[in-house]
Amino acid sequence: MWVVELQNDGLENLKLAERAKPEPKAGEVLVRMRAASMNYRDLVLAQGSYATGHTFPLIPLSDGAGVVEAIGEGVTRFQVGDRVLTQMRPFWVSGTPTKAQLGASIGGPRDGVLAEYITAGAEHLVHMPSHLTDEQGATLPIAGVTAWRALSQGNLRPGDWVVVQGTGGVSIFALQFAHRLGARVIVTSSSDAKLERARQLGATHLINYRTTPNWDEAVIELTGGEGAHHVLDVGGTDTLSRSLDAIRPGGHVYLIGFLGGMTVDFELRKAIRRTAVMHGLSVGPRETFEEMNAAIEAWKLEPVVDRVFARDEFRAAYDAIASGTHFGKIAIKF
Amino acid sequence: MWVVELQNDGLENLKLAERAKPEPKAGEVLVRMRAASMNYRDLVLAQGSYATGHTFPLIPLSDGAGVVEAIGEGVTRFQVGDRVLTQMRPFWVSGTPTKAQLGASIGGPRDGVLAEYITAGAEHLVHMPSHLTDEQGATLPIAGVTAWRALSQGNLRPGDWVVVQGTGGVSIFALQFAHRLGARVIVTSSSDAKLERARQLGATHLINYRTTPNWDEAVIELTGGEGAHHVLDVGGTDTLSRSLDAIRPGGHVYLIGFLGGMTVDFELRKAIRRTAVMHGLSVGPRETFEEMNAAIEAWKLEPVVDRVFARDEFRAAYDAIASGTHFGKIAIKF
Amino acid sequence: MWVVELQNDGLENLKLAERAKPEPKAGEVLVRMRAASMNYRDLVLAQGSYATGHTFPLIPLSDGAGVVEAIGEGVTRFQVGDRVLTQMRPFWVSGTPTKAQLGASIGGPRDGVLAEYITAGAEHLVHMPSHLTDEQGATLPIAGVTAWRALSQGNLRPGDWVVVQGTGGVSIFALQFAHRLGARVIVTSSSDAKLERARQLGATHLINYRTTPNWDEAVIELTGGEGAHHVLDVGGTDTLSRSLDAIRPGGHVYLIGFLGGMTVDFELRKAIRRTAVMHGLSVGPRETFEEMNAAIEAWKLEPVVDRVFARDEFRAAYDAIASGTHFGKIAIKF
Amino acid sequence: MWVVELQNDGLENLKLAERAKPEPKAGEVLVRMRAASMNYRDLVLAQGSYATGHTFPLIPLSDGAGVVEAIGEGVTRFQVGDRVLTQMRPFWVSGTPTKAQLGASIGGPRDGVLAEYITAGAEHLVHMPSHLTDEQGATLPIAGVTAWRALSQGNLRPGDWVVVQGTGGVSIFALQFAHRLGARVIVTSSSDAKLERARQLGATHLINYRTTPNWDEAVIELTGGEGAHHVLDVGGTDTLSRSLDAIRPGGHVYLIGFLGGMTVDFELRKAIRRTAVMHGLSVGPRETFEEMNAAIEAWKLEPVVDRVFARDEFRAAYDAIASGTHFGKIAIKF
Repeated sequence: MWVVELQNDGLENLKLAERAKPEPKAGEVLVRMRAASMNYRDLVLAQGSYATGHTFPLIPLSDGAGVVEAIGEGVTRFQVGDRVLTQMRPFWVSGTPTKAQLGASIGGPRDGVLAEYITAGAEHLVHMPSHLTDEQGATLPIAGVTAWRALSQGNLRPGDWVVVQGTGGVSIFALQFAHRLGARVIVTSSSDAKLERARQLGATHLINYRTTPNWDEAVIELTGGEGAHHVLDVGGTDTLSRSLDAIRPGGHVYLIGFLGGMTVDFELRKAIRRTAVMHGLSVGPRETFEEMNAAIEAWKLEPVVDRVFARDEFRAAYDAIASGTHFGKIAIKF
Repeated sequence: MWVVELQNDGLENLKLAERAKPEPKAGEVLVRMRAASMNYRDLVLAQGSYATGHTFPLIPLSDGAGVVEAIGEGVTRFQVGDRVLTQMRPFWVSGTPTKAQLGASIGGPRDGVLAEYITAGAEHLVHMPSHLTDEQGATLPIAGVTAWRALSQGNLRPGDWVVVQGTGGVSIFALQFAHRLGARVIVTSSSDAKLERARQLGATHLINYRTTPNWDEAVIELTGGEGAHHVLDVGGTDTLSRSLDAIRPGGHVYLIGFLGGMTVDFELRKAIRRTAVMHGLSVGPRETFEEMNAAIEAWKLEPVVDRVFARDEFRAAYDAIASGTHFGKIAIKF
Repeated sequence: MWVVELQNDGLENLKLAERAKPEPKAGEVLVRMRAASMNYRDLVLAQGSYATGHTFPLIPLSDGAGVVEAIGEGVTRFQVGDRVLTQMRPFWVSGTPTKAQLGASIGGPRDGVLAEYITAGAEHLVHMPSHLTDEQGATLPIAGVTAWRALSQGNLRPGDWVVVQGTGGVSIFALQFAHRLGARVIVTSSSDAKLERARQLGATHLINYRTTPNWDEAVIELTGGEGAHHVLDVGGTDTLSRSLDAIRPGGHVYLIGFLGGMTVDFELRKAIRRTAVMHGLSVGPRETFEEMNAAIEAWKLEPVVDRVFARDEFRAAYDAIASGTHFGKIAIKF
Repeated sequence: MWVVELQNDGLENLKLAERAKPEPKAGEVLVRMRAASMNYRDLVLAQGSYATGHTFPLIPLSDGAGVVEAIGEGVTRFQVGDRVLTQMRPFWVSGTPTKAQLGASIGGPRDGVLAEYITAGAEHLVHMPSHLTDEQGATLPIAGVTAWRALSQGNLRPGDWVVVQGTGGVSIFALQFAHRLGARVIVTSSSDAKLERARQLGATHLINYRTTPNWDEAVIELTGGEGAHHVLDVGGTDTLSRSLDAIRPGGHVYLIGFLGGMTVDFELRKAIRRTAVMHGLSVGPRETFEEMNAAIEAWKLEPVVDRVFARDEFRAAYDAIASGTHFGKIAIKF
């Protein structure tokens, strides 16, 4: 079968290769993969700046969609023909994770999904919402679950004000979920065109942070002086201070990304004065994934796929995530 | 009646003065004050480095205990003779506060409790646990409530591991509460003598951070490699990074103080990797205060009062809080 | 101004009368009423079989919509021209109520809303969702809030199975809410025509309990053998036993009504065996009302009004609620 | 090895017998049993009036304490020499159970613990709190876990009022737990001597329901007119109506037992009027058991063992549970 391998640090070391088709052991299923989606994690890992303890060659990418082609002994959770999704952290079932569950990710250090076939423990996959295409489904494991987990941890209630920074994968999912849950959603972006697309997805207020760099003050004003209940922070260094200024007392800041850098000059007094709650977030357990899927199915929600690359264009998919110009998710269809 | 006034920035501007004894209006009670306790906030405010919007002269201190001497029209919540405690943020009743409720503190910008008498809205006081002395009761409004609120927000469960930094007021309350709630409590201090006293209050493990500067690693080892569920962080700049290293995935860091400085170099990736929850904390609503008092009464818990100063020694009480050598709380008895 | 008075027990003692137009006192607002909705409570109270401690004459009905025409001293929560809704239990603001808050209902023992004008404390009214007509808004105070409170107390999650009995006011709201929150909703009714309307409102499965009297077994089958997560029980005597059979372990039964009688032969073992949670429900606090309104506004949800009577037809509105043939709510437009 | 077998319905069919000593399979441990405790369930099952789907011969009793004597392949959760407790529902790990998890109980339909040795899946046992004797530990699996689960589901808070009916196993655990968690506990009993023992365990108020048959009114009076937050109902038919009268609005009634009969004439209106929450309860998941054990260990709490029978007196242990005169738990020491 074909696989893509990362044979060493550096995007140039992503190579198409051949491996033997695996057999499902007891408790496992064999999945014919059909699509995958790209995450920022995949990029920095391939560039060599994200140490997961992986060795080479590594099959990259954690987020995939496929069809069950065979089942091992004792498997009852899936049947042949079922459409399934992978999980970046397959061993995290519910509640808070152990360090071992956090560490055992696919797409690094374990082999990922950019392959013709994978085998996986039946407990480590979830059913795909039935109305989704393969490439839509493949966008869910990291971006969808992280957004859902954030809003759940912060106990989003109808009528709450939510600030979503930018229009990357997690941000767009957060917008779509918060809108359907009855929240008022403010989206920030440097592009009026992207803001207009966000409006069509349910954003109630838009802020172009290029023309309004003090976007935190704009949020305070929009919310009648009190601030937002929830801010999804994707910028880290560049945004955290304003995120803390934009929330109301007791508000939640979700730490999702570090696009702006790893180390933040963090003014403690702001967090204390606002009795802020700051949540470090990185996917969630299977329980969260399945609950989100139930909602997606009930709402017939469609994930936003910016571009779909063919299997042989996988390098272009890495370039696309690196460009940072996407709106929603980037996918590869096999 | 006598009052103490802060007549300008600087500890030297704390002066004994005379004011007219107030009358309780409708809905208010008149309280003869008997004791107060000192908080770090009182020190930096008097030094002029904590802007609350106050004007001079200001009656300082927020945490007081007294006896109801008269009640205004329509008051049913208290009777003459009831022993009561003040609240630093009198208008915060339950849930999350508004900015107005956060801003309207006593001891600055509003007059505080270092006075022979105060009047207060009946809704703004709470009943004192009956087994406490006045000076014990006076320790509760900031330090007790902040510690209780922290452990409640983080949903402390029996068997959890809690790290308490140092032996100041909030830390000692957190130790006492967590111990009674069935948690295992690790206390850090630079003094073996203080650690020994912490053991007597229920600490199950002790770390002298002078001899063990990598106290986070010691916590990881004590907790079987996983880390603590809760860390009460009082040092800010000096401690936050290690606090994030000391928690387990999904663990809670309570941001209580900034003894080590206001701005923190904060490594975002640590918070995200551990899916940490960081809570800015600063007292809590009346509901929290009353729940804590019920527990204190049921447990017959005794707050730890390090030293009690006489009314005329109020300047020495400020010096004592500045020295940072106390174990528990510093009180003034009128 | 005109009012309707219940001058003694019995529907025949509902009479149009004249009273002086009230003035708003400090903290109050004057509301010109525009619409009201009927509840089963109003019927049995007028018939004399629901003792609330009221005296005659009593202005009936608790659920009304109107416009603020004047505000008393110190009112900031509303302005002249604001569209508002009443609350059946005006003094219940948040959390669990006191007995006094439960007892002080309008429409009995206190005067209700079937009047040209009412005065009410500004804290005792809520803003109406802006997209609703007066008669739509008037359906919310009891039926909407009770349904919302039920699903909140049982912590409804996307993907949950919900059984809604019948097509009365609370049931239809529960269907509309649960559907938007991502649940799968099974509706039971004796009428195929009503079931078809329920399908159009989002019901995913329908059971005619006339042709399928063992509807609990049908629920078990639809849910893959496990049972529903939530059952909204409106029948009491006639339905509770089957409701307990229809839930899964740990499922919730909401006790809403007693159409089938007051006393239930209740098999304790069923509740214990299923570790069922049974919730007695009767409206909720203002906090619940406001949260529901935010969701209704965000979703642009339209309450289902079965029939609208003119003010002079108020007796016919009582007859309509007595007939039990309605689908959704019955309203009166002034 | 020796076992006790229930060879047919009827206490006279409990017989000492011989079976082959089992071997632990992969994932299992071999436990040398040292003690067991009796539950009401064991009595009615042996009498033939509790159908669990069991066949004869059945090894009875679900609650046991023992020592790990050997471990099967792949077991890391326990080591030889560890002291362990059994679980009545071994397959229920966390959250709400499935029907299969509820049905697969030991002591019926599966073999129980009245035996020299048992084998069990390592996931199906828990560590015993280290300060307990074997017979103390053996009291925990049903009575302790049920009491802990009740207070957790009802979110007991310090200062809450709790009513505990009688002095059986679950009731005494509820008293001990609620007392340590800062609640005020009212105990009802027909015996002044038992009430005096309850006082020594932390009960703050005592009601002899023989001399005060309207004990619900006494509760209302003790609680300042509002009623209790929590009532642990063990009587069912005889007590439920008064339990509902004894709670405050939003209060919790825990349905634990049916000593007074299976079918209750239940006045629905009482539950609705008080917005009561009624919880059917029957043990809990392993997660609950482990959390309780952590608290028991931290508090050094000692379960109350009324009488300890020798292995050869097992029939007398059944008679003791039938007599209903015990205070706390009845144990058998092997």
